[in-house]
Amino acid sequence: MPHIPLDSDLPGITGLFAYRPETARPLIELAEVLLRGPSSLTPGERELIATRVSHLNGCRFCTGAHAAFAAAQLPQGMDLVDRVRAEPAEAPVSDKLKALLAIADAVQRGGREVGEEEVAAARAAGASDAEIHDAVLIAAAFCMYNRYVDGLGTLVPEDPTAYTAMAVRIAADGYVGPVPPPRVRS
Amino acid sequence: MPHIPLDSDLPGITGLFAYRPETARPLIELAEVLLRGPSSLTPGERELIATRVSHLNGCRFCTGAHAAFAAAQLPQGMDLVDRVRAEPAEAPVSDKLKALLAIADAVQRGGREVGEEEVAAARAAGASDAEIHDAVLIAAAFCMYNRYVDGLGTLVPEDPTAYTAMAVRIAADGYVGPVPPPRVRS
Repeated sequence: MPHIPLDSDLPGITGLFAYRPETARPLIELAEVLLRGPSSLTPGERELIATRVSHLNGCRFCTGAHAAFAAAQLPQGMDLVDRVRAEPAEAPVSDKLKALLAIADAVQRGGREVGEEEVAAARAAGASDAEIHDAVLIAAAFCMYNRYVDGLGTLVPEDPTAYTAMAVRIAADGYVGPVPPPRVRS
Repeated sequence: MPHIPLDSDLPGITGLFAYRPETARPLIELAEVLLRGPSSLTPGERELIATRVSHLNGCRFCTGAHAAFAAAQLPQGMDLVDRVRAEPAEAPVSDKLKALLAIADAVQRGGREVGEEEVAAARAAGASDAEIHDAVLIAAAFCMYNRYVDGLGTLVPEDPTAYTAMAVRIAADGYVGPVPPPRVRS
């Protein structure tokens, strides 16, 4: 039961976007730029970082949603997403992505947890300054989105196909798409 | 020393805004709407929430900056800010603001830390749904800004007048002001 009155057909952050459009606008734009804007990291790789951080923060809605968004945009699908979510250092991804995921893990614990060591490891694995910047900001942003979604006690769909339906839309149209968020019955 | 090359005249988040204007835009717009947009909470009250969360996250730049922004917009100035930052439950602020600060403290620990109890206490003290929403989102957003600033190892001004100079600009023009961020020598 949400802590404030939200449209019960709109789960997770979508109900909050409808409740407060003034804050929804920059929150959606940030997700679009970070997760789908021009970058040397693919949208699927960036969604893996979002999924891992949401998992560490224990946010069921964001983990389910971004896992589906990652799976829809990666040839290896949900098998890979599940492995990255649970144990990124052992997952079959590039050394560069592993190092960026390690930075994201540090950011999730706290900004000052990111040391020279994690950054040097990412650089040695081929990460650019822009990729290190974006990994930090994606992880930091999900420390916000996760707290926003759970801090207001929003609805979590129990039916996993709800996330798949959202993934189809996000993969096609992005976060700032022409189609309104899907209405999901709880 | 920042983890990526940033303009050494631009401390904290201002160097990151210059480095990546595409993400700066929604990040600045979010701060403007949340901290200065139309609200039944004053800008000073909202800056107190930002200051308290930044303090709990151990982010020296954001704590110094938002403490100065709060002090510039509250008749009781820095004395009150210092008391709220250290011990909000004992500070001479309204019961409503105390309850919203308690919600912010819970959000800082994690989204699922906000329970029915904290929300009921805020409501009993007169907080509206919109105020509860905004307290949660301000706290969540500073869990992002703080991690972004510290996760990239940005410059922290040692001279406290650097924050006062920023506060004059923010109080006059807002976060999306016509004047570029001040250049502060480290």
